Amino acid sequence: MRIGGVLNLLGKLLIILSLMLLTPVPFSIYYQDGMMATFLACSGLGLVAGTILVAIFLPEKELGYKDGFAIVAFSWLALALLGALPYHISGHVGSFIDAFFESMSGFTTTGSTILSDIEILPKSLLFWRTMTHWLGGMGIIVLTLAILPLLGIGGMQLFQAEVPGPTKDRLAPRIQDTARILWSVYLLMTVMETVLLMLGGVDFFNALTHSFATLATGGFSNHNASIAQYQSLYIQSVIILFMFLAGANFSLHFLVLRGDFKAYWKNEEFRLYLSIILIATLLIFTVNHFSGLYVEAGRNLRDVLFQVVSIMTTTGFGTADFDTWPPFSRIMLVTLMFVGGCAGSTGGGIKVVRFLLFFKYARSQLHKLVHPRQVETIKLGNTRVPQDVMIAILSFFAIYLAVFLIASLIITALGVDIITGPSAVIATLNNIGPGLHLVGPTQNFGHLPGLAKLVLIFCMLAGRLELYTIAILLTPCYWEMTRRPKLRWQKRTTEHK
Amino acid sequence: MRIGGVLNLLGKLLIILSLMLLTPVPFSIYYQDGMMATFLACSGLGLVAGTILVAIFLPEKELGYKDGFAIVAFSWLALALLGALPYHISGHVGSFIDAFFESMSGFTTTGSTILSDIEILPKSLLFWRTMTHWLGGMGIIVLTLAILPLLGIGGMQLFQAEVPGPTKDRLAPRIQDTARILWSVYLLMTVMETVLLMLGGVDFFNALTHSFATLATGGFSNHNASIAQYQSLYIQSVIILFMFLAGANFSLHFLVLRGDFKAYWKNEEFRLYLSIILIATLLIFTVNHFSGLYVEAGRNLRDVLFQVVSIMTTTGFGTADFDTWPPFSRIMLVTLMFVGGCAGSTGGGIKVVRFLLFFKYARSQLHKLVHPRQVETIKLGNTRVPQDVMIAILSFFAIYLAVFLIASLIITALGVDIITGPSAVIATLNNIGPGLHLVGPTQNFGHLPGLAKLVLIFCMLAGRLELYTIAILLTPCYWEMTRRPKLRWQKRTTEHK
Repeated sequence: MRIGGVLNLLGKLLIILSLMLLTPVPFSIYYQDGMMATFLACSGLGLVAGTILVAIFLPEKELGYKDGFAIVAFSWLALALLGALPYHISGHVGSFIDAFFESMSGFTTTGSTILSDIEILPKSLLFWRTMTHWLGGMGIIVLTLAILPLLGIGGMQLFQAEVPGPTKDRLAPRIQDTARILWSVYLLMTVMETVLLMLGGVDFFNALTHSFATLATGGFSNHNASIAQYQSLYIQSVIILFMFLAGANFSLHFLVLRGDFKAYWKNEEFRLYLSIILIATLLIFTVNHFSGLYVEAGRNLRDVLFQVVSIMTTTGFGTADFDTWPPFSRIMLVTLMFVGGCAGSTGGGIKVVRFLLFFKYARSQLHKLVHPRQVETIKLGNTRVPQDVMIAILSFFAIYLAVFLIASLIITALGVDIITGPSAVIATLNNIGPGLHLVGPTQNFGHLPGLAKLVLIFCMLAGRLELYTIAILLTPCYWEMTRRPKLRWQKRTTEHK
Repeated sequence: MRIGGVLNLLGKLLIILSLMLLTPVPFSIYYQDGMMATFLACSGLGLVAGTILVAIFLPEKELGYKDGFAIVAFSWLALALLGALPYHISGHVGSFIDAFFESMSGFTTTGSTILSDIEILPKSLLFWRTMTHWLGGMGIIVLTLAILPLLGIGGMQLFQAEVPGPTKDRLAPRIQDTARILWSVYLLMTVMETVLLMLGGVDFFNALTHSFATLATGGFSNHNASIAQYQSLYIQSVIILFMFLAGANFSLHFLVLRGDFKAYWKNEEFRLYLSIILIATLLIFTVNHFSGLYVEAGRNLRDVLFQVVSIMTTTGFGTADFDTWPPFSRIMLVTLMFVGGCAGSTGGGIKVVRFLLFFKYARSQLHKLVHPRQVETIKLGNTRVPQDVMIAILSFFAIYLAVFLIASLIITALGVDIITGPSAVIATLNNIGPGLHLVGPTQNFGHLPGLAKLVLIFCMLAGRLELYTIAILLTPCYWEMTRRPKLRWQKRTTEHK
């Protein structure tokens, strides 16, 4: 690993985030919430830290694919740490672990909160809270569609073909091309949702921040009641639509915006994604109906659709307390939590495409047992899926479950109960937001022990970065290859000679 | 599939089971429990059914590997149906589904019961109950060490090398050789445990039946309190030892009995099996200790070791109600339920060897990300594990979880609660016995809805037969190849010409 180059890049990212820390300032001035000094101070701190890194370490022109792991993991960690400062310095979140939890939950687009009363926070801090979602969502799009395919993580190499540009060794050029295209889609959709929400009577501040949280499939709301605050069918429908879009592959949106309107339907993953949502909605609707939970079928359908889309896309917004739903409905929702969004979306979870390939694989495996001499090939669209990718996907499932189990064991060992603990892990590992019981939709994560919060922070990060990025940093052999960093003063010394 | 040959073989198996149905008769006479007529009638029914099948369908000399799936699945199903009759005809189990559940639980060596009071049953019926375990255990040893490797199911082809005999196409000769060797080990160990238990003061009847249930890793006890009935440290230790041995590969026992005493330690799976038991015991012991559950550390250790071995080997005997243990301990036990015994044991679950290979694979996968040009090979002992086997194992994990999820969803849809439902599925799919909450160690499965019992019966069978055997029978293409059965009268007609 070229650690010097990685730290230099990290410094630049910190500087960019410091500038983003200035975006809440206009809101602070407008609402006069007294947060201006905090944001200026945090921005300043970030600027200093970033500048120091850039000043010490020289950039490397040739950052290889192995450096990608470190860049991705460290940048998320560093940004979450800097992003936690406004909560803590302003005194609104007393414990730093809590502030770090809230910030990591933001940047990983999870949406789990440690706050019991959200509405007492100053407006500019609420703005920052959803801004972390939005920035994290931006990062994820680039990560899943441009960086991870190059790293060959968990079967993501499949998407390599869809990324423009022929370079294989250098990360930068291809990433920049892809990023520009996808970010413009992301920005456009954010603007569209904001406008549509405002047309439904939501004020600019709430329309913008809820759009941030929707497009990033984050789930932070400015209201304690989450989206139940807006009982209008129109507003809830707009949010359902944009959650649904945010959970789909952003390169599809790009194709559609360019005029290829059949792009959605031509995509197998998208078809399965839509089918799962419809089937799950129907099943939960039926079970809820016969359990006598709802008097009105229309209300039941609306609530179920909202919750299914919110959970499946890993947004985590709520219009109903699904923790009071019948066991079947809750298990169904927990299952959807693991499925998650499409690859190349801002959604978390295992991703629909991995399940799609698994179904295809299971079918071919059974077929092979019956007809052992036939050669089975698995295709995704028109692309043949190599066996390597299949193995990577299957082992991804297994590692995912292993992380889930180990984290659940640690958290319950700390005294958390048997529903709350594992469901908190599921909610964070899949970047959803709410879990069940004491971390259910009407509850929060604030009451958990500090160590449990750290484990959940790890889960958010590991889940967001597709596990391998984190796992690889934990192997000793990765670090054996670390190169001495090039420092600026060493360069000068060399020049002097 | 050669359905005629399969049905002929099934007829022969039914005749054998009919003879086994006479084994409780001496006990019935000795204890004068009035069950003699029932057993004679059931035996007669089985004899008639078996004879009819043999009379109609001609045997096939060349039963191929594809017929193996049908033979295995149908024989377990048919034997469980016939084995259910004594419960139902005697009137001790009113509902036939309940009797079928109890019988399937026996033959699959699960040990889940629908009975709330076991002790009121006649002795000869209790004998039959554990006899189904013992016969099922015998069947499983042959299945996993002789039949499944030939069928190439879920990575079991790995064990092909360990089975003597060169034939590949015909099932019979190799199976017979292997079966003879392993059954003598099984029989010997049953005798040993019976004698050791009697030396501890257990009467012959209970010593024999508990040995049946131990060696088969079944878990049916004649006492409502299960093994808590015997508070003697000696008796509990004997049972722990034999549960442990029954959960290990029987070909290792064979090697040790032949004088190769290092066979256990040379086997990687055995080492991992032992390590998991020790580590889990230590962890649960510690958490139980600090939760203040036990006053006496020795008692805690004994109870934890017993429960860990009982659950890990999928026996399901109990000396303590682990449903009252802290959440960590319960989740740890549920995790062990999925791990299960070693391949080639009578234990259920996913099997230790699959986890072993998965760990090796995950490590090599991470290593490969760091050093992409190095070729990684995975070895088990001295054998290279082919990539095909690795894929089969990884997809086995995924299919296992899919079955678990779907079954849990169906059962909770029937109104069973969120802890009872999934834990009942885990307890049956892994052939354990007790689950948590309403199907916990001090409870039973009798109160579940009939449809839920049928789903659990399916789980027991699917889990016992390593999923694929059942899954393949559900694919239409398997049935397309069914050959017309050869019938005896057709043969005669042919001879007349």
